[in-house]
Amino acid sequence: MSIVTLVTDFGTGDGFVGEMKGVILTSCPAARVVDITHTVKPGDVASASWILERVWSRFPAGTVHLVVVDPGVGTDRVPLAALVAGRWFVGPDNGLLATTIGPVEEAYRIDARAMEIPPPSMTFHGRDLFAPAAAWLASERTPSGLGAPVEPAALIRYTPPEPVRVGDSVRGEILRTDHFGNLITNIPSGWVAPTALVEIGGEVISGLRTHYEMVEVGELVALIGSGGTLEVSVRSESAAARLGVGRGADVNVRVVRD
Amino acid sequence: MSIVTLVTDFGTGDGFVGEMKGVILTSCPAARVVDITHTVKPGDVASASWILERVWSRFPAGTVHLVVVDPGVGTDRVPLAALVAGRWFVGPDNGLLATTIGPVEEAYRIDARAMEIPPPSMTFHGRDLFAPAAAWLASERTPSGLGAPVEPAALIRYTPPEPVRVGDSVRGEILRTDHFGNLITNIPSGWVAPTALVEIGGEVISGLRTHYEMVEVGELVALIGSGGTLEVSVRSESAAARLGVGRGADVNVRVVRD
Amino acid sequence: MSIVTLVTDFGTGDGFVGEMKGVILTSCPAARVVDITHTVKPGDVASASWILERVWSRFPAGTVHLVVVDPGVGTDRVPLAALVAGRWFVGPDNGLLATTIGPVEEAYRIDARAMEIPPPSMTFHGRDLFAPAAAWLASERTPSGLGAPVEPAALIRYTPPEPVRVGDSVRGEILRTDHFGNLITNIPSGWVAPTALVEIGGEVISGLRTHYEMVEVGELVALIGSGGTLEVSVRSESAAARLGVGRGADVNVRVVRD
Repeated sequence: MSIVTLVTDFGTGDGFVGEMKGVILTSCPAARVVDITHTVKPGDVASASWILERVWSRFPAGTVHLVVVDPGVGTDRVPLAALVAGRWFVGPDNGLLATTIGPVEEAYRIDARAMEIPPPSMTFHGRDLFAPAAAWLASERTPSGLGAPVEPAALIRYTPPEPVRVGDSVRGEILRTDHFGNLITNIPSGWVAPTALVEIGGEVISGLRTHYEMVEVGELVALIGSGGTLEVSVRSESAAARLGVGRGADVNVRVVRD
Repeated sequence: MSIVTLVTDFGTGDGFVGEMKGVILTSCPAARVVDITHTVKPGDVASASWILERVWSRFPAGTVHLVVVDPGVGTDRVPLAALVAGRWFVGPDNGLLATTIGPVEEAYRIDARAMEIPPPSMTFHGRDLFAPAAAWLASERTPSGLGAPVEPAALIRYTPPEPVRVGDSVRGEILRTDHFGNLITNIPSGWVAPTALVEIGGEVISGLRTHYEMVEVGELVALIGSGGTLEVSVRSESAAARLGVGRGADVNVRVVRD
Repeated sequence: MSIVTLVTDFGTGDGFVGEMKGVILTSCPAARVVDITHTVKPGDVASASWILERVWSRFPAGTVHLVVVDPGVGTDRVPLAALVAGRWFVGPDNGLLATTIGPVEEAYRIDARAMEIPPPSMTFHGRDLFAPAAAWLASERTPSGLGAPVEPAALIRYTPPEPVRVGDSVRGEILRTDHFGNLITNIPSGWVAPTALVEIGGEVISGLRTHYEMVEVGELVALIGSGGTLEVSVRSESAAARLGVGRGADVNVRVVRD
């Protein structure tokens, strides 16, 4: 299997992603390069984590997820390839490769000398180090040829903010405002009773619905989104614009499922 | 043949499209997934129809066009696969699958139980129902395995606004402002004489040209666009910005070809 | 090898790129179509040149680079396929196909009659002429079947602005503001000593660094970027926004490497 997916904060306007694609296809002509997103806000590890968590398991085992959101390029942060749940994650060691996805099975420090490729530039490891490493793995070359093994426990771990139970309530927050303006929280479905009161942006929504069209156009609705957490929407409009809130804002749920 | 094209209103920032790509490639590893657009305005069936009409026939017979603009997700609107002119169109029954493209040859109601896949979420049928169905068809599995057949005549049909002849004139409207600010109308080339007067946004353009550079930079020009209808442009500028008009605005053509 | 890369100014919102992809895959089903960018500013040949220069050599010999930034569509500007350094470049003769990449080895005037395809529309040669020509070359059909040969020396040549040495100084300019707001100049690394003074937007930066994180967040830094030229950045911010300058702005470097 030779799927290589791309998650970056490079945008598509400059050709940086194109350079990476060329490097991958030159080194592994059979690779199938799949764009996930290139519009992560520059350096926004939290957003990249949120996206990666949704996407990674939808691809088959053997997929290489190339994840380059790398504010620390050129510093001594470690360039890594990590095997988690049968997929390879390639990118800088800034937390994304050892998120809550699952235990890291093996990891290697990507080393241009070990791979016998030219020394990387100081500002574009996506092209010079991570794309070659992804192509290496997509070609089913021996992972240990990438460089020295790294103890999985040593990887930096990004932990998204977690909801907290306080008595009969749950206090969580908005993790994501999506393309439609839906406000996606970190409160898992199992913590929210169908009759719960959801407090967000100064409004209270009474009870969950199952889908957007159960309320009138322009009306607030709380439901369990496709990622399995509580989501607040406005039918056919942007809840973010309507409530004037976004990432990090508090969400309270009263009356919790037992 | 196993091309799967994607037309959605999901944007590419959240990874929703990535989830769909993963589902397709897991189920049909040989599929060739082709992005058409993900920036249809949320819920804008008219725009998706306009894009689909331009694109569908450029792909070979056997292509699966996955078209997910789905404001009614979770309601009882029918999830469909429809065969039109040798291509499969997969998406919600909201008019897009039975546009003016041609007669629907066969259609099936997509049913997770028939396909033996998990029940879909209530808010993301693109991932849970339509992507699996597209992969099913791209794998050349039996279409009738998707679910019960649907009578083609029962499909909802989106009809773009049509131009009207009034004496020696044609009254049409702008269907699309494109990326360049060109104003693309619904008036077919056969209804416009080369010497016609085109009235739009309070201006009158006298006669058609064949290409943009036949007028000076900044000047209005009327021509037959690459989709075969009357188009109004400003050379090297945005006609939409210049005239202050957009979709739905009136266009009148006087002196019609006999 | 049958990679076809796409650089256009079409945007992805209208389906124009989708039409081109369909034409390519219909004519050359084995082609691997790779998006580089579709957000070149309309008609901006200088930007397309900058992107192409970065990207072209990252793809293997045999790649077809389809480059359609074509303000002169429909005029007598020549539709071309040019072989440079083992890659084919297909697009209008507006300078992009004969940039500083290298000497043109062979070139052909793309001719619908020679290719036995329908006459092109007057406004969308990307779909009607360039995509078929790219598919032709990706199918490894005889290049001379595209049309009459063109003398390589006759191609229009786009020359990016070049830096000038004046005594101990170099006067260059900003060629590109990238996605991160980095200001990328035309001054090659070999012309800048590590201790140089860089004057830009009324500020003076003393000495080069090797990577962004060598300065504090919000601080200006000059370094050699991944394209091999002088670049001015602000760590974790946009240098373009901070300095209020962009493409074409002067950059002066004092004390030049001998």
